[in-house]
Amino acid sequence: MARVVVDVMLKPEILDPQGQAVANALPRLGVTDVSSVRIGRRIEIDFAGEPDLDRAREIADKLLANPVIEDFDIRVVADAAEVA
Amino acid sequence: MARVVVDVMLKPEILDPQGQAVANALPRLGVTDVSSVRIGRRIEIDFAGEPDLDRAREIADKLLANPVIEDFDIRVVADAAEVA
Repeated sequence: MARVVVDVMLKPEILDPQGQAVANALPRLGVTDVSSVRIGRRIEIDFAGEPDLDRAREIADKLLANPVIEDFDIRVVADAAEVA
Repeated sequence: MARVVVDVMLKPEILDPQGQAVANALPRLGVTDVSSVRIGRRIEIDFAGEPDLDRAREIADKLLANPVIEDFDIRVVADAAEVA
């Protein structure tokens, strides 16, 4: 079994109000040296057999990300045994 | 400038209906060898100066994750120049 991780983030030129809200809350925690916070999604896909990056890319493109406003990045992380 | 990435995932014993919905849609794309899909959040925190992992951990614990149902993982990724 193998795990593929897809990271989906808004493109840099797209405003991220959710991240901005977190960034605005930080001074109340006493944190003043953070310049930016961006929030995206992390999707873990466990394959029963060999990890299939092309398949994962297709899944990400069709189901997980909106390519108009989001970029995604795909990588195989490890055997699930190692991950657990 | 340095970037810290916080990955927030539901704990393994917590049901993930969003991931389940994606998993259920996969056979329609012709993908049948995926055993599980879990969806979480990826947060990128850019520090103006040195990355501060303890600070980032505090931010994650208080603002970004719900420790009752979510686990989080923190790491420094790279200089922003490298990231960009």
